[in-house]
Amino acid sequence: MNERNRLGLSVGGVELGLGEWLEGKGPESDIVMSTRIRLARNVVQFPFPGRIEEDRKAQLERYLRERLDEVDLAGNIGYQNLNEASDLDRQCLVERHLISRDHASSKGERGVVVESGGTLSIMVNEEDHLRLQVLRSGLQLDAAWDQVEAIDRQLESKLDYAFSPEFGYLTSCPTNVGTGMRVSVMLHLPALVMTKLIEKVFHAVNNVNLAVRGFYGEGTQALGDFYQISNQVTLGVSEADVLKAMAERVPQIIRYERNMREKLINENRIGLEDRVWRAVGLLERARLINSEETMSYLSAVRMGVNLGLVDSLPISIVNELFILTQPAHLQKLNGCELETPERDEVRAAFVRDRLAAMN
Amino acid sequence: MNERNRLGLSVGGVELGLGEWLEGKGPESDIVMSTRIRLARNVVQFPFPGRIEEDRKAQLERYLRERLDEVDLAGNIGYQNLNEASDLDRQCLVERHLISRDHASSKGERGVVVESGGTLSIMVNEEDHLRLQVLRSGLQLDAAWDQVEAIDRQLESKLDYAFSPEFGYLTSCPTNVGTGMRVSVMLHLPALVMTKLIEKVFHAVNNVNLAVRGFYGEGTQALGDFYQISNQVTLGVSEADVLKAMAERVPQIIRYERNMREKLINENRIGLEDRVWRAVGLLERARLINSEETMSYLSAVRMGVNLGLVDSLPISIVNELFILTQPAHLQKLNGCELETPERDEVRAAFVRDRLAAMN
Repeated sequence: MNERNRLGLSVGGVELGLGEWLEGKGPESDIVMSTRIRLARNVVQFPFPGRIEEDRKAQLERYLRERLDEVDLAGNIGYQNLNEASDLDRQCLVERHLISRDHASSKGERGVVVESGGTLSIMVNEEDHLRLQVLRSGLQLDAAWDQVEAIDRQLESKLDYAFSPEFGYLTSCPTNVGTGMRVSVMLHLPALVMTKLIEKVFHAVNNVNLAVRGFYGEGTQALGDFYQISNQVTLGVSEADVLKAMAERVPQIIRYERNMREKLINENRIGLEDRVWRAVGLLERARLINSEETMSYLSAVRMGVNLGLVDSLPISIVNELFILTQPAHLQKLNGCELETPERDEVRAAFVRDRLAAMN
Repeated sequence: MNERNRLGLSVGGVELGLGEWLEGKGPESDIVMSTRIRLARNVVQFPFPGRIEEDRKAQLERYLRERLDEVDLAGNIGYQNLNEASDLDRQCLVERHLISRDHASSKGERGVVVESGGTLSIMVNEEDHLRLQVLRSGLQLDAAWDQVEAIDRQLESKLDYAFSPEFGYLTSCPTNVGTGMRVSVMLHLPALVMTKLIEKVFHAVNNVNLAVRGFYGEGTQALGDFYQISNQVTLGVSEADVLKAMAERVPQIIRYERNMREKLINENRIGLEDRVWRAVGLLERARLINSEETMSYLSAVRMGVNLGLVDSLPISIVNELFILTQPAHLQKLNGCELETPERDEVRAAFVRDRLAAMN
């Protein structure tokens, strides 16, 4: 981790770095920001989280933490009890896609295992007893699956998973019963947004039982032209079926986006350059900027870098800025909490300094 | 004249520089761009331009040119027959406020005397036989008057001016009869525009027989928050009355603008800085920019420089850019005519280079 990016975000004694998935080195990473697979699991000895009592929940947290300790998770691993974490630290974990918003804001004994590179997180006592998540840079469906499956196998040898031979893994919410698996690919689709073809693509995606979600998952808005494509069905399909469907459909969307970028360049290169460089200029010079506007300019710059229209900025810096300019990260970097207007000022100064260092 | 700004704009063999009034050194030049006084004069031996025949007009042009040659005009003086000038050169003279739009686009024998610094121009065969103009940096009513009056006196000794003891100087249009004088002060009023108080100021100005005009005079739009205040009445008043009214009213408007700038800084300094620096960023980075948008950003930057919010840019560069980014100047600098989309590209490159040279 670069010294500049030292957040001081410690998770169970482990310093959290910026994450492999921000380096932009994965396959198709000009368009695919990340591939994420999560598995929902519950154990038979305890009630589902919706009907568990507080003392049982505390026992469950302790029980699962002990089992997780026994498992060999690759990398630098820490466990954080979220009840003991600050609100700001919990928000940072949300912004890093390592815990859900609900997990951050709910009450009671609950926690998360994270790997210092941010590739792995295991939520304890979220909507299900366990949510195993692997997060990888670019389009890495198989690698992400192999990793999460290996962890799942190890845990399965230590735990009695709630499993029905008829339905598969049992979960709190019926939408997850079966595989308990959600595969999400985060796509950066500025050219499809610009050419207003994005709705058409989503329509096609919905027709094949995939869902489109916003930057922070279900029920959230698209920010910075990022969209998550994920499977809708978990029941009556195998993990392999879902991975196959994603492996077929995502490259089609990538192709659409690439074609549109090419079209934009061929038809109006200077217009596209103008859009990208104005975004650079605004990020370099603004004195007040909110998170949404930052995301929107960063999106244009990200496309510009990936199309070779901007060669002075490494893509990793652009990717990092998407995360580091989010409210909680910004406050963490700043060393104290900030009200919104102050935050917009600190954000502008942070972006400005970071870009000036590149010139 | 700086080598960079060599336009190759030759007027009667005299190379036209950028003009003293762009240096921004005149009194109150944070708000007053320029003071201009023009006198309309006609000679008794020839019909008014509206009813003159082509051959008489040609004779008049020759006659006036010869008399102008006999007069001692300070500085480096050239005379250009506009019928023999290119359309682009004529447009450049319009953009420099040295000839009117009508004078550029009309037909027949007509011309202009200019001083290489752009402080003096004398139009021949415009709406009147002669239009003497002095243009000075900042608020310099008395200096401009002294200069134009001295030239007028010399010319009066060589020419029989059409003059009525009852009405004063006779002119083509009744609105100029009397003094034949128009005093125009070009004001930069971004804070009054921003705070939406500009209409109120104009209303007050109109009540005292002053008029508000756009960047290129009567019937033109305000550009870059520039407004010209000028006298409406020429009949039944003395030159001294008009100068006195302007000398009373203009400083009031200057005070309003200064108060509003101070208020903006006191109430939301960071918001004002944001506006100014975003304009800098867009000018530094845009790849396509039209004249109006350029003027609008330059206006914000000009105010920022004058308020000390931007210290890396000399005001002369900002003032020059207002003129050099106008369509004809841009094409002249570029060395050839350009269609509009190309022009926006060349303009963006020109502004970018000029600002990059300041960093």
